[in-house]
Amino acid sequence: MQEFKSLENKQVLITGGVGFIGSNLARRLVSLGAEVTLVDSLIPEYGGNLFNIEDIRSRLTLNITDVRDPFAMEYLVQGKDYLFNLAGQTSHLDSMTNPGNDLEINATAQLSILEACRKHNTGVKIVFASTRQLYGKPEYLPVDEAHPVRPVDVNGINKLAGEWYHLLYNNVYGIRACALRLTNTYGPAMRVKDARQTFLGIWIRNMIEGKPILVFGDGEQLRDFNYVDDVVAALLLAATSPVADGQVYNLGSHEVVSLKQVAQILAELSPGASYEIVPFPPERKAIDIGDYYSDYARIRKDLGWQPRVDLHQGLTNCIDYYRSHKEQYWESA
Amino acid sequence: MQEFKSLENKQVLITGGVGFIGSNLARRLVSLGAEVTLVDSLIPEYGGNLFNIEDIRSRLTLNITDVRDPFAMEYLVQGKDYLFNLAGQTSHLDSMTNPGNDLEINATAQLSILEACRKHNTGVKIVFASTRQLYGKPEYLPVDEAHPVRPVDVNGINKLAGEWYHLLYNNVYGIRACALRLTNTYGPAMRVKDARQTFLGIWIRNMIEGKPILVFGDGEQLRDFNYVDDVVAALLLAATSPVADGQVYNLGSHEVVSLKQVAQILAELSPGASYEIVPFPPERKAIDIGDYYSDYARIRKDLGWQPRVDLHQGLTNCIDYYRSHKEQYWESA
Repeated sequence: MQEFKSLENKQVLITGGVGFIGSNLARRLVSLGAEVTLVDSLIPEYGGNLFNIEDIRSRLTLNITDVRDPFAMEYLVQGKDYLFNLAGQTSHLDSMTNPGNDLEINATAQLSILEACRKHNTGVKIVFASTRQLYGKPEYLPVDEAHPVRPVDVNGINKLAGEWYHLLYNNVYGIRACALRLTNTYGPAMRVKDARQTFLGIWIRNMIEGKPILVFGDGEQLRDFNYVDDVVAALLLAATSPVADGQVYNLGSHEVVSLKQVAQILAELSPGASYEIVPFPPERKAIDIGDYYSDYARIRKDLGWQPRVDLHQGLTNCIDYYRSHKEQYWESA
Repeated sequence: MQEFKSLENKQVLITGGVGFIGSNLARRLVSLGAEVTLVDSLIPEYGGNLFNIEDIRSRLTLNITDVRDPFAMEYLVQGKDYLFNLAGQTSHLDSMTNPGNDLEINATAQLSILEACRKHNTGVKIVFASTRQLYGKPEYLPVDEAHPVRPVDVNGINKLAGEWYHLLYNNVYGIRACALRLTNTYGPAMRVKDARQTFLGIWIRNMIEGKPILVFGDGEQLRDFNYVDDVVAALLLAATSPVADGQVYNLGSHEVVSLKQVAQILAELSPGASYEIVPFPPERKAIDIGDYYSDYARIRKDLGWQPRVDLHQGLTNCIDYYRSHKEQYWESA
């Protein structure tokens, strides 16, 4: 893995910077000597949690604003070398109950951020956090980047629009941008109050609280997972690699497991923990995508990325983290 | 062709109803005995022109509002049997200079119309006017519906989001909806003040004014065209055919011609007319898609649709129309 020395003293903006992935990325960038500014709205239902950055708070600039504020964003993009555009509404279910809100955050705000860059900072390099959700229900597995996009929920449609605005601004205006289509990311600092960000969050919380983990469906749905440190590495590679400009890359893992297997690993890691296989709630069934796992050969070939932390190790880290810090994540912070 | 008798006395809402395609559709629906309400904002830069409906004004309800007004739309969708959702920002160039405006009309407003239907009229059948623009630069020709979608401008991205919201609401909520991906539509009532709606408009206007037609590039770009009456027939078939629910259909034509050939036809139809091959303006070149023509086998098979008016006849009709009514189309109306 590269050392990313080129990031030293660079001006870096991270939207969603107090959230799960944003805060882990910020920690890495601070350690690399970058000058980091975080943008976050700290909306209670989303991923921002000030405890996520407590240890690095004095070494970065925190700017509370919403990415939907075009005036603030127009100022904040100026003078930045890199923009990691991670802010998003991530809940598939919320995107169906409040689709206009999802649209504003995941599409409208993205377009206005890009317009701000076009007007004030065409030299910035942008990495956009996209999602495997836009593939919809897979036609074949593993899903590579040539797989048709066919979102099954409002979130998927809006994320796709947001991704394409980035590629368009790369292609038409030469504002260097690329997108990583993340699969299930997990690790310390993920939201565990509910399943809005990842179902693993609520699973781990329930496990630590001694409640059974609820596995929807038959538990046989296949998934791939990335530990957050691996995702941070991919973001940095994408940012510092000119070959990535204008590209879309899947993340993914060679470890493909069923949801039941994940529940079993968690149960083994925590004596007394248990899980239950329960039917899908109807509102989740309507937007479920069945089995999913990615082909990540393109990013391995172009950028030399591959995941390094296996599920057993990653989940162990999570359990340790949340056992130590549950008072910071169970309640509003 | 079916007689569409089932539309008699039906409640029909047409967004963009005073525009080019909307007004032609309205005329046909009125003649079929439908009870038609038109929604239009009459924004001067768009397609609405009250002269388009002058002959049928007393036989329908005209409601001036913008599709971005969620309050008005929430009321207007109620009690309707059919919604032809034709309002849109159509200029590719304007979508690049004012992308937020394109987003509001082509995506945000579409989502709020669908939400209005979900809350107040789940029994409505919706036909959405989509566009071949979302395919981007073709990978192969003719372009069928399985062709990857890869928009090359903001308009294409937003139209795609708008289309997918419709299909999603069909699939998740059972609100019957389908989309027609229109290619170059032309005919009486098209905007001729400028090239915002179709380049053919400004060509015909220039021709009638005795100015040369400007053909961008080398003139060899291939295109297909549909006369507006054929598009109206496709819209009615899509509305009245249950097999269309949840589907996307290309329109298209067996007549595939180069832009230079179209200019030649126009020159033949109008003694003294001329054309010039000129280089692309750079802002158009950046979003040009090269050759394009559709495979429309799917709609022919499913709905029995095919185009019936050839280019020579259609252009003749246009020239006759605009020679007779130019005072209604040259100036603001």
